[in-house]
Amino acid sequence: MSQHVVVIGAVALGPKAAARFKRLEPGSRVTLVDREKLFSYGGCGIPFFVSGEVADVAELRKTAFHMVRDAEFFRKTKGVDVRAETEAIAIDRAAKTVTLRHLPTGKEEVLAYDQLVLGMGSSPVILPVPGATLPGIFTVNSLEAAQGIRDLAAAGGVNRAVVIGAGFIGLEMAVALTDLWGIETTVIEFRDQLLPGVSGHNLASMALRHMKEKGVEFRLAEQVQSFEAGPDGRVARVITDKGSLDADLVIMSVGVRPNSELAKNAGLNVSERGGVFVDETLRTSDPAIFAGGDCVLLPHALTKAPVYLPLGSMANRQGRVIGTNLAGGKATFPPVVGTWCVKLFDLAAAGTGLTLPAAKAAGFDALCVHAGMLDRAHFYPEKGLMSLDLVVERGTGRVLGMQGLAAMGDALVGKVDVVAALLPSGPTAYDLGNVELAYSPPFAAALDILNVLGNVADNIIAGRVKGIHVDEFAALWNDGEDRIILDCREHHGIEHLLEKHPGRWFNIPQGDLAERLHELPRDKQIVLMCNTGARSYEAFVTLAHNGFTNIVSVEGGMTAVNAAGIEV
Amino acid sequence: MSQHVVVIGAVALGPKAAARFKRLEPGSRVTLVDREKLFSYGGCGIPFFVSGEVADVAELRKTAFHMVRDAEFFRKTKGVDVRAETEAIAIDRAAKTVTLRHLPTGKEEVLAYDQLVLGMGSSPVILPVPGATLPGIFTVNSLEAAQGIRDLAAAGGVNRAVVIGAGFIGLEMAVALTDLWGIETTVIEFRDQLLPGVSGHNLASMALRHMKEKGVEFRLAEQVQSFEAGPDGRVARVITDKGSLDADLVIMSVGVRPNSELAKNAGLNVSERGGVFVDETLRTSDPAIFAGGDCVLLPHALTKAPVYLPLGSMANRQGRVIGTNLAGGKATFPPVVGTWCVKLFDLAAAGTGLTLPAAKAAGFDALCVHAGMLDRAHFYPEKGLMSLDLVVERGTGRVLGMQGLAAMGDALVGKVDVVAALLPSGPTAYDLGNVELAYSPPFAAALDILNVLGNVADNIIAGRVKGIHVDEFAALWNDGEDRIILDCREHHGIEHLLEKHPGRWFNIPQGDLAERLHELPRDKQIVLMCNTGARSYEAFVTLAHNGFTNIVSVEGGMTAVNAAGIEV
Repeated sequence: MSQHVVVIGAVALGPKAAARFKRLEPGSRVTLVDREKLFSYGGCGIPFFVSGEVADVAELRKTAFHMVRDAEFFRKTKGVDVRAETEAIAIDRAAKTVTLRHLPTGKEEVLAYDQLVLGMGSSPVILPVPGATLPGIFTVNSLEAAQGIRDLAAAGGVNRAVVIGAGFIGLEMAVALTDLWGIETTVIEFRDQLLPGVSGHNLASMALRHMKEKGVEFRLAEQVQSFEAGPDGRVARVITDKGSLDADLVIMSVGVRPNSELAKNAGLNVSERGGVFVDETLRTSDPAIFAGGDCVLLPHALTKAPVYLPLGSMANRQGRVIGTNLAGGKATFPPVVGTWCVKLFDLAAAGTGLTLPAAKAAGFDALCVHAGMLDRAHFYPEKGLMSLDLVVERGTGRVLGMQGLAAMGDALVGKVDVVAALLPSGPTAYDLGNVELAYSPPFAAALDILNVLGNVADNIIAGRVKGIHVDEFAALWNDGEDRIILDCREHHGIEHLLEKHPGRWFNIPQGDLAERLHELPRDKQIVLMCNTGARSYEAFVTLAHNGFTNIVSVEGGMTAVNAAGIEV
Repeated sequence: MSQHVVVIGAVALGPKAAARFKRLEPGSRVTLVDREKLFSYGGCGIPFFVSGEVADVAELRKTAFHMVRDAEFFRKTKGVDVRAETEAIAIDRAAKTVTLRHLPTGKEEVLAYDQLVLGMGSSPVILPVPGATLPGIFTVNSLEAAQGIRDLAAAGGVNRAVVIGAGFIGLEMAVALTDLWGIETTVIEFRDQLLPGVSGHNLASMALRHMKEKGVEFRLAEQVQSFEAGPDGRVARVITDKGSLDADLVIMSVGVRPNSELAKNAGLNVSERGGVFVDETLRTSDPAIFAGGDCVLLPHALTKAPVYLPLGSMANRQGRVIGTNLAGGKATFPPVVGTWCVKLFDLAAAGTGLTLPAAKAAGFDALCVHAGMLDRAHFYPEKGLMSLDLVVERGTGRVLGMQGLAAMGDALVGKVDVVAALLPSGPTAYDLGNVELAYSPPFAAALDILNVLGNVADNIIAGRVKGIHVDEFAALWNDGEDRIILDCREHHGIEHLLEKHPGRWFNIPQGDLAERLHELPRDKQIVLMCNTGARSYEAFVTLAHNGFTNIVSVEGGMTAVNAAGIEV
């Protein structure tokens, strides 16, 4: 039985749903509608076009086999009709029609559908402050904007750029402007860390340090209040609650909002804050209407609450599920965990599941375990440091999330992906300690870094060691209390610390500790330090066995202290 | 309550079990026994020492913080007593004693234990042929052998090396000898592919092609019959069932056997073919005796049958479980899936679970789906081809295993690790199509390669496309039958194939197919070909919808054909 499916939005979800449905029901008809002239593009590639890594903006519209995904492409290769530059302005659910308006001509048309797909995507948030729409202020949400930014940069007229928002896109844009174009770039973020919401504070500090070393300036916990124009009418200055900055170019990347008005006006179940609610088959509250991609909310696998994850990867997978169900299939889309990665100059950051603050906010009695280790066999010449935060539930040991930072990006993404894949099934730290991963010295350590992380968490949960993070270490380092730092490494290489902090920084190599316990005070807190946390854990066990009670071990050791840029 | 634990074997499992137990019960006593003078080393690193990537053999005995793991190290840092150069020759289970013999002096001693750990490891298989122990023939199972091989190579006296066995160690040794030392190296393997048992035939062919390009010669399906000495009494020639080869150096890497005689003689439950049986707590049939590492058999998560996986990573994880249980814990070791990786010059190979032949042998109605794709966003400049075989059960769609080959090793290992982590919970191809992995253009594709692979498998299982592998393509290309190859790519770039094979190789771009169906014969088989298999899948759907029945699509397309070195 042939049917007509109308798909609103043709960036990622829409084309995928349309093509999948047509493969399953070649005899049915699909109309794909999009507001833009240039649709079906890899929007996530925009920062890499601005950076010059992608030479031509057209590349973002091509398939892997170099065909441009234009209307002709969809008609010929997918059997899908496209209406570009066309807006869907109303849905009549009773009549099963959608009203379209051709934007260049204003001509309206009522199109009947058997089933409808909503993939309207999202719109960038524009700060509600004076001057927010001045020329020279760009959001990163269309190929035209991308071309505009790059043209400006390439013309050499940009000396100082300001990026507002230290999320994925903002940081990628800061990297692009600094790295290729050598533009003095400052990132303004109103929260007190970069990657707010997705990264823990310690990892964010480490990433911040790296980006500063690469020349990007940051103004955290600072709020934009207005933009001022220069004599040419273009943006020239950004005014914040703490001062002002000159800027020839402003990238506004403070998040996106779901385009769910069309759905709301049609009486579909839509969140008050925006975002269409869908069930596990990706149907809206009207069974003849599906929705997906950047305009929907999805249940989180851990918190069960609806969350908003505007990511191209989510949209692509959802498109296939919708395509299947349009053809009468019974596909379901699993609850989400929120997996991400981003390249920040020479480092990669990635994560999945909940951060510690997010876990606590969701009501979990959670703790975060930090480890910083070599990512493969320590004797293999090419290797990198990987810093990982594991968020676990205290009572059950259940893994709630993991975030990481590493020089070897693919390796980090691999570890995060393993946890992402396991998260929905509720693994414990113990399970993570025993997951069977591939081992060979060029690629991993014999005890994989994920196994180690699971084991460390397992020990902390069981109370076998009490760890503190580097930010806690930084706090107690500066609080003036009389305690001692006991460095458990071999003497060689740490003499400068002993000389610099006499009476405060002590050294007993972990192997000598059992024989030298009498040298330690029993009335002061002892803070155990080594290179990565492994030897200070051993030292903790020895001290605890010998009746010391006021002891803590610095998770990640001096590796983490240095990575976070803490001065000792 | 203090107890005495005796641990036999001090390479990977033993030290880990001993150290873990001591951390949990610092008041108890542990004696660690090993036959060798140099114990507790990273045996997996030997090929990288031979290659020169690891400068000094001592590196393989060091911790990540550069301390040599000798008896003094274990005593001081772990509180564990070590008896080196000492063999355990008998266990009296009733008396709970073990008889030790100090090898240099022959002195025997009976040691009482409360609990015993067997970590005797494995011994390399020596081919039962004449001359197998001639000087110049090495197995790769000790630091002394490693040093011997490297000394020979470094002295410049080796012109031709023969490696027997194309498993992990054999191939790594072939890479080492060829890459650093420029030694003419031939690998002899009695089965008809490299990586037998762990890799499918197609991926093995691709890896073979790469290694041959790098200068390694291979003699597959060839059996060594004897070794002949030269005038100096050292090995000079290898005689096989198909001829002979000169050789100054022979590496015999034809597998290892579990050292389970001690356990067998003590009346423990041991497999007839070797290998100690253990339960999920890693206890032997005697509850006071644990065993792990290279001397045990473990249940496979998919086949449920006991399997032998002599890998350092397995031993390390098992050591912790045993250490916990020695201290009264209730840790269990999960069933295994057999995850591996190996670096072969510029490529990485990796896998987990069952290969297609192994799945069939285990009674599964299995099929293998092949995909060859770019491993990240196609518009991102740095990217690599990843070839993956997914083994799935036909009826249920359950994933049984995955093997892969790629230039970007960390990326491949990450994908394999995801499947490895999921395998025990029985995911289907559909589940794999929906697993939520990290996406950003520098690290992955918007529809992750694992999602695509799951979707392709899902389509094949559902009968939506009929695929053939490149070896099947090679067979039908040469079988003389009258069929046509329909190339679905754009015309540009494939003219040479059309000119070379008139009447056989046709071209209709996939987008033109629906309008040009009349050009195709309905009485011949049509073999659909494109670059990676994506467009030929679309073409398959179009042809099937239009009544064509005798059609197949080449999985992986010309990318796979070229990677396997098939001449068309």
